[in-house]
Amino acid sequence: MGRYSVVTLSKLVEQFERMPGIGHKSAQRLAFYVLNMTKQEAENFSKIILEAHEKIKRCSVCCNLAEDEKCPICKNDSRDKSIICVVEDPRDVIAFERTHEYNGTYHVLHGVISPMNGIGPEDITIKELLARIGDDEVKEVIMATNPTVEGEATAMYISRLLKPMGITVSRLAYGVPVGAELEYADEVTLTKALEGRRTI
Amino acid sequence: MGRYSVVTLSKLVEQFERMPGIGHKSAQRLAFYVLNMTKQEAENFSKIILEAHEKIKRCSVCCNLAEDEKCPICKNDSRDKSIICVVEDPRDVIAFERTHEYNGTYHVLHGVISPMNGIGPEDITIKELLARIGDDEVKEVIMATNPTVEGEATAMYISRLLKPMGITVSRLAYGVPVGAELEYADEVTLTKALEGRRTI
Repeated sequence: MGRYSVVTLSKLVEQFERMPGIGHKSAQRLAFYVLNMTKQEAENFSKIILEAHEKIKRCSVCCNLAEDEKCPICKNDSRDKSIICVVEDPRDVIAFERTHEYNGTYHVLHGVISPMNGIGPEDITIKELLARIGDDEVKEVIMATNPTVEGEATAMYISRLLKPMGITVSRLAYGVPVGAELEYADEVTLTKALEGRRTI
Repeated sequence: MGRYSVVTLSKLVEQFERMPGIGHKSAQRLAFYVLNMTKQEAENFSKIILEAHEKIKRCSVCCNLAEDEKCPICKNDSRDKSIICVVEDPRDVIAFERTHEYNGTYHVLHGVISPMNGIGPEDITIKELLARIGDDEVKEVIMATNPTVEGEATAMYISRLLKPMGITVSRLAYGVPVGAELEYADEVTLTKALEGRRTI
């Protein structure tokens, strides 16, 4: 029934409470914000939520978010299609794009191989990745999954599939983040930073 | 146009960014949460937003939020209608109700008198309050507006209107919050705590 005597308010607060990073007080604040919108603004918000579900699909090439058959990056002929940066999530594409330093294409797995969570290779977009490499003039695939146990395992799994195809498979460098202080870095990161050292 | 190449995503993130306490990173997190809902869940969320606007009105007696002509508190005959607790906002009613220590009724002003913000007495529900006091067997009105300059001014304004009607007008006590440590209290609060001291 909810903790407010006005049931519709309870339902609205509950919707926000389910959201990541939103506790009860924040949920209440957001629900009242929505309540205090004009009817027009509320209808607009409601419409945008539905539109997000109707209009946003997956790019048929790279599986990133797209409103058309192909996403803006795959449609862009000035992108270097010989190199694919494989990531776990659309948010990783957004992060890389913010650097303005990468002109290749992406592939979004929408997850990682995680036996503990019942996610196998068939549950992420590996099939679509292999299909692309068949079609394209792909020379290098960068494994940019997260530097976690599952991210690493997924990178290894995919690289073993790709190596026989004569493609260069690379992995993002591990190391100390720029601007960090060494004494605060954890031991695993420091070890990796030493292992990956490059001659000046 | 927004900072994401997928326009609908930009629009969704922007909706969340406007919300209080939601910065860009949180807005992105919430937008993706909505995107990853099932279509059913998204339609449900969208519907609840519209319902909040269609179904929630103001109680004809106390101006609190209500789904009917009268709110649950005003409909409740076991509430003590001889005492009215006047507050600024529906959230204040929620806060008082959580104490389970007050059995009177409320009146929600939906704001405070604030000349700086162009809010005059006619812009808050003073008229409705006076109408109630004409009808009811009201003996006491507690001015429970916020302990701020405008809250205080509003309390004074309303009490001057009510006094001639022979009603007891009271004001919430100022003082140190329970559980606080004196050395961290501000000087104004400490001064008020001294002024409002009660004989043991």
